[in-house]
Amino acid sequence: MDIAAANALPYEDFVAIFGNVVENCPIITAAVWSRRPFANLTALEESISEFIDALPQSGKEGILRCHPDLAGRDLQGGTLTRESRQEQAGAGLDALSSTEVSHMARLNREYKERFGFPFVICARMNDKETMVRQLSERLGNEHAVERGRGIEEVKKICHLRLQGLLLTDTRNKL
Amino acid sequence: MDIAAANALPYEDFVAIFGNVVENCPIITAAVWSRRPFANLTALEESISEFIDALPQSGKEGILRCHPDLAGRDLQGGTLTRESRQEQAGAGLDALSSTEVSHMARLNREYKERFGFPFVICARMNDKETMVRQLSERLGNEHAVERGRGIEEVKKICHLRLQGLLLTDTRNKL
Repeated sequence: MDIAAANALPYEDFVAIFGNVVENCPIITAAVWSRRPFANLTALEESISEFIDALPQSGKEGILRCHPDLAGRDLQGGTLTRESRQEQAGAGLDALSSTEVSHMARLNREYKERFGFPFVICARMNDKETMVRQLSERLGNEHAVERGRGIEEVKKICHLRLQGLLLTDTRNKL
Repeated sequence: MDIAAANALPYEDFVAIFGNVVENCPIITAAVWSRRPFANLTALEESISEFIDALPQSGKEGILRCHPDLAGRDLQGGTLTRESRQEQAGAGLDALSSTEVSHMARLNREYKERFGFPFVICARMNDKETMVRQLSERLGNEHAVERGRGIEEVKKICHLRLQGLLLTDTRNKL
C-alpha cells in the first residue's frame, strides 16, 4: 500500500491495518487519522510520535505496559500479536534453551519489579545476546531515563512496522 | 473482586482484567495503574475520566474510533469484544429484523460520514428504539458537541463495566 491509498482509507480500515504499529494501542493510530492526508511515511510516523510525546508520563508508561515480555509467557503460550510473534521469532527468541528462557524470565521480573513496566526493545534491531546485555544494563537506569528509553524503542518498532505496511511507498522513494 | 484486591494486582493482571473498561483502549487502564491504590471504584473511575479529559481532541476521537458500530458488521460477524457483545445483545441488537439492520446501517454510515467517528451510546441504558432515536437526533449536532456526547457515553459504559468487575466492592458499600 502506498501513502495515497492509506490516506484514502476510512478510519475503520486505517485502524484495522495500522492499529498495531504501536503494540496494543490502536487509539494512537485512530487519533492520528484526524491529521491525514500524510505526505509520506515519515509524516505519519511524526504524527504518531507527537501524539506519544504529548501524553502524560502515566500515558507513556501505559504504552510500555501494553507490550509483552520478551521471550515471556505470551511467546510460549502463542498469545502474542502477529507483529510481536514475527519480531521475537526473527530475533531467535522462540528457540531459546530452557536455561536461556529462565534467565530472561528472571531479568524481566527484576526489571518489572524495579520500573513497573516491561523491558521494551526493538527485537528486529537486536539479537538475543544484545537484548540480554541491554536488559541487564538498562536495569541500572533511573526510572525516568528508562521510561524514555522504552519509548524510544517503541518508536523504532513503530518505524519498522510502518515500513512493512507501506512497502510500496518505500519503493517509490528509492 | 474488591478494590483492595485490584490495588494489589501487578500491571499485567490489572490490564488483563480492567483493560477493556474503555473499549479497545487498554493503554488507559495501563496508564492509571500508576495512580493506585484507589480508595474505591469511584476513585479508579475518576482517574480514568481524568486521563481521557487530558487527551487532545484527536485522542478523544481516537477513543470513539476504537468502538464498533451498533448492530454493525462486528456484531453480525461475531468479532465484537465480549463486553460489547453482551451489551449489544442485552439491548436486543442481535435480534433485529433485516429491515431494522439496514436502517441502523444507513444511520451509522451517515453518522460516520458526518463526524469521522462512530455513534457511541451506552447500550445498557437504552433499548433499540431509544438508540435509533438518539442516533437520528445526534446526527444534527455540531462536530465538537457530538465528540463530547460520545465521550460522555464512553464514561457511562466504563462505569457499568467497572461495576461488573468490582461487584464485591459494590456489595461492600451497601
